[in-house]
Amino acid sequence: MFYSAAVDIASGFIKDDASPEQVAAERALYEPLAEAVRQLVDASIRTTVDADEVRAVTEDLERLAARLQRSQLPGAYGVRYGSDGTGRPWGNTVVGVRNPAAPPLRTVKDAETLGNVSADFHLGAAYEGPPSHVHGGVLALVLDQMLGEAAGAGGRPGMTATYTVTYRRPTPLGALSARAWISRTEGHKTWAAGEISGPDGVTVEAEGLFVLPRWAREAGGTDSPDAPHYF
Amino acid sequence: MFYSAAVDIASGFIKDDASPEQVAAERALYEPLAEAVRQLVDASIRTTVDADEVRAVTEDLERLAARLQRSQLPGAYGVRYGSDGTGRPWGNTVVGVRNPAAPPLRTVKDAETLGNVSADFHLGAAYEGPPSHVHGGVLALVLDQMLGEAAGAGGRPGMTATYTVTYRRPTPLGALSARAWISRTEGHKTWAAGEISGPDGVTVEAEGLFVLPRWAREAGGTDSPDAPHYF
Repeated sequence: MFYSAAVDIASGFIKDDASPEQVAAERALYEPLAEAVRQLVDASIRTTVDADEVRAVTEDLERLAARLQRSQLPGAYGVRYGSDGTGRPWGNTVVGVRNPAAPPLRTVKDAETLGNVSADFHLGAAYEGPPSHVHGGVLALVLDQMLGEAAGAGGRPGMTATYTVTYRRPTPLGALSARAWISRTEGHKTWAAGEISGPDGVTVEAEGLFVLPRWAREAGGTDSPDAPHYF
Repeated sequence: MFYSAAVDIASGFIKDDASPEQVAAERALYEPLAEAVRQLVDASIRTTVDADEVRAVTEDLERLAARLQRSQLPGAYGVRYGSDGTGRPWGNTVVGVRNPAAPPLRTVKDAETLGNVSADFHLGAAYEGPPSHVHGGVLALVLDQMLGEAAGAGGRPGMTATYTVTYRRPTPLGALSARAWISRTEGHKTWAAGEISGPDGVTVEAEGLFVLPRWAREAGGTDSPDAPHYF
């Protein structure tokens, strides 16, 4: 059942051998573009300028989108690997630096405890569910990524098999933090747990099961410590 | 524990008494803006135009964002109610028509079975997790929204208390469909279940518990059949 998808996923891990200098130059080029579009996402929701101005800006944005679309990748970004083996999951919807829909999360691995990861981040108007609060599903999205990164940081990367999210109280939009850790292991199975906190403490908790698919174990392509980013 | 958040959320339900004609005019104004920015989100990830062109477009985008930001709402959009009682959750990260980070999902209520909802939608490069595939957390986000809408469509709106997502196989980016239904009820508690399907069938399933908080029951502000949108 997993076969064709496995091939599709495997083919999206692209070794382009970009040098660290090239990667740094790409990052310096695309991060400001993503940030400008991120500002536009927020402004599209919140602007109150008059209708003529909205229409004029919209037309200009359509022209600029067409300029960027003149030459583009045939599909999604995938994950690209540079000459030093570092992967770039730059389209990823949570951590992708080229993705304006991503906050983007920057996760930090604990130097002392293998498998512990944390992130400080800000979620604005684009992530709203209940008024002024983060959509519960966005919290699940962030926790899925964090749990996967914990599994990977502990040397046990995998794809999510199942997870449960429990909401303790509403999470306000704004500054938030998340942390995750490995809670249990058994063969190719890894359980990871995590939580998100707002200014008044923990608002949501999650625990999930991560499994490294057979094709990935056989390909050996996910042994990199960065692999968890990619699932 | 819920008190201050309850007040925050309640204050985000804004009755602006816009007439149906005003709402239609607003929609005609803001939908093209959101769609243009949505194109830019995709292009930011996928463009391969040369570096000078990326820089030139970025500068123009920054200027356009500043024009929209000259006058804006102090915070997130919230939910606004027109004169006919219809709510507009236009900033919502899943269904918000002014939110370029939203697909946006358009859910359809089954006319025959109360509480059954469905949606056909397309997820492109901005929603990537594993290469060429939808991020597992985005599927959780969509299902959280769908389950909440099912609860609401059955006359039992609520906020998510907990839910479990089970991944059957990877979900390719592209055309997808989702459906959700009420699976069980007990007092103020409602359990809803749902699934997402790709071209090869069901890829992910979820079940969750939804509870209408006391403040909302007392405010009576969520009795509208559209209320589920807002949690």
